[in-house]
Amino acid sequence: MFSKPSVSAEAELKPPFQVTQFTIPEDYIDLGLGDPQFSLLPVGLLREAARERLAQNDPEFLQYGARQGDGYFRNSLAGFLARGYGAPVDPDGLFITNGVSMGLHLICTLFTHPGDIIFVEEPTYFYALRIFADHALRVIPIQTDADGLMIDSLVEALAHAMPKFLYLIPTFQNPTGRTMPAERRRQLVELSRSHGLLVVADEVYHLLSYDGMLPLPFAAEVASANIISLGSFSKILAPGLRLGWLQSSPQTALRFADCGLLNSGGGMNPFTSAIVRTVVESGGLDANIASLKDIYQARLHGMDAALRSELPALEYNLPSGGYFIWARLPDGRLAQDLQPKAEALRVGFRAGNLFSSQAGMQDYIRLCFVFYETSQLEEGIHRLKLALT
Amino acid sequence: MFSKPSVSAEAELKPPFQVTQFTIPEDYIDLGLGDPQFSLLPVGLLREAARERLAQNDPEFLQYGARQGDGYFRNSLAGFLARGYGAPVDPDGLFITNGVSMGLHLICTLFTHPGDIIFVEEPTYFYALRIFADHALRVIPIQTDADGLMIDSLVEALAHAMPKFLYLIPTFQNPTGRTMPAERRRQLVELSRSHGLLVVADEVYHLLSYDGMLPLPFAAEVASANIISLGSFSKILAPGLRLGWLQSSPQTALRFADCGLLNSGGGMNPFTSAIVRTVVESGGLDANIASLKDIYQARLHGMDAALRSELPALEYNLPSGGYFIWARLPDGRLAQDLQPKAEALRVGFRAGNLFSSQAGMQDYIRLCFVFYETSQLEEGIHRLKLALT
Repeated sequence: MFSKPSVSAEAELKPPFQVTQFTIPEDYIDLGLGDPQFSLLPVGLLREAARERLAQNDPEFLQYGARQGDGYFRNSLAGFLARGYGAPVDPDGLFITNGVSMGLHLICTLFTHPGDIIFVEEPTYFYALRIFADHALRVIPIQTDADGLMIDSLVEALAHAMPKFLYLIPTFQNPTGRTMPAERRRQLVELSRSHGLLVVADEVYHLLSYDGMLPLPFAAEVASANIISLGSFSKILAPGLRLGWLQSSPQTALRFADCGLLNSGGGMNPFTSAIVRTVVESGGLDANIASLKDIYQARLHGMDAALRSELPALEYNLPSGGYFIWARLPDGRLAQDLQPKAEALRVGFRAGNLFSSQAGMQDYIRLCFVFYETSQLEEGIHRLKLALT
Repeated sequence: MFSKPSVSAEAELKPPFQVTQFTIPEDYIDLGLGDPQFSLLPVGLLREAARERLAQNDPEFLQYGARQGDGYFRNSLAGFLARGYGAPVDPDGLFITNGVSMGLHLICTLFTHPGDIIFVEEPTYFYALRIFADHALRVIPIQTDADGLMIDSLVEALAHAMPKFLYLIPTFQNPTGRTMPAERRRQLVELSRSHGLLVVADEVYHLLSYDGMLPLPFAAEVASANIISLGSFSKILAPGLRLGWLQSSPQTALRFADCGLLNSGGGMNPFTSAIVRTVVESGGLDANIASLKDIYQARLHGMDAALRSELPALEYNLPSGGYFIWARLPDGRLAQDLQPKAEALRVGFRAGNLFSSQAGMQDYIRLCFVFYETSQLEEGIHRLKLALT
């Protein structure tokens, strides 16, 4: 113990090592994966931005950063979001995070205790359920329909329990692809006001609309009700940056900035913020999003066409943005029964029950149309058809 | 509400905006600040590494990253640490974090509930106390002497309560600069084994030894006892990177990698890891540390000389590394009484009670010798003398 051993760590392991969160065998098509395609990750854009930023010889963004996030970056981000949302964005209401997951994690840390109740949509993003479970929260599901969260169900639930917050994905929801119309949003904001309900809106897909028609995000209402809107560069630039933001009232943003974690470490990602600031200010982010929208829209239509031709019995509402199609299997078939045959045919999907906080949604599957090119999506859908036969 | 407002956010605020966590007025010398000097932040090293890494057109590190951290980066980091520690380091025991603060925060999230007891050194790092407060932990202080944590005090405390963990800074402690000798480390490891005590060792200053003589870090014992060692690039490269690691048994490292936050967002900082990997592999990190050691050693001696000549009544043990000198004020004077006059003379320090979990240490001050050049340290100490007169 604490004796001098020989140093041999360097020779211990041999490549290849794991770099990314997942690896997919070459003959496998995973239609369930909710990640951007490797070839669409903008290395060139980041290379150029890093070159420009680091050429300036400014050491400030290598220091412990402003706790709420680099002020110049927040200002540029506010301008970008205001254009994208069609609504003003106050830079003082922005707090820079390491992405939506970290935003959610911090909200749980600062606003909840183990055993507290929260409300979520049924179904909802399954890894959010994992984060809530790590914080030992009691999750109560609120029913949804084709227009997202049902206000009646929420009102009924509020009559029985006051949650620490309601978590929802109002636009191009994960997994359903559904978008809540403006009128329901208005009703929810009113409920937030009348009940003092904290609404945590995960708006990570809001800027990926493929037909241009969207209600305003909940981010537009942070000054008028108890709302935290979560955003991220993961879907519009690159997940590996681990850079996102939350938008709220300036007072709430300061509450995040003033917790022990931020006091100790300073702002959450100053180095990457400084580089991405250049991507935003150069117009590169706008161009990247425009390009992604064109590509994703074509893939969405490609998957839709393939589904209609190969699997006409599958029920789904075509989304107009985001990443996902949420489809109901025909004849009451269950996703988990389909899985062995699909695996044998080398095609993947996400079973609906993953997204349920109560083991429901077993006859649904989530399909993602962004990770593969259309020809691969078609091949994947064809294999899915064979699996269902 | 949700009506279309005019977009005017971009024009709302005017620079300059805050980029860094702190700003110091030009006429002020803050000897309390525990941050690296701006001019020693290696912009050129990161520029070169970013250029090299991003020239490779490899999009992998822009994707959701491996949850435990990029495997190539962990492998290079293990080699670097093995050389620096003089002990083997298993890459599978490394989990990449956003720095020590985030490591501590995750430990609290995964290993504690509100109301749980933890042990800390008295005095200890004050922002760690803030993180523990955010998690509503009950902090029990363990006494220290010139050799750091006192084993007798720990044994006595263990007889009354079993903590979720013991947090300590064994080498060049913040704030005392003290280093625990090998024999006490051995005793603590034995206690960890016999009691199943989780030891969280913050070893962030271990690689900043100015005379080359150090006992092995607790990191060298992660395979033999329940130990988590926290490390960071903040003190040896740049805090704005928000990049660090924790080292433990591979099973414990996997526990971090498998929490909801990591499942959702992937590895904590893949983009920055890829760039810093180049800094490590090029030898740039070793060169940076060698340069910092030379500079910091000279400043340590400069501050020591100034203290001995200007304030001979101040009591302190000269550290042989790290950032801090911990000094006792003469004649029972209290740091907080000194503060108004020091402010008027434009010199800062950190009052000892900040570092106490029980409002003790009021006759101590923490001085940092790394942020300023020797001439400024001398001027600061001179002002401090005037404040004490």
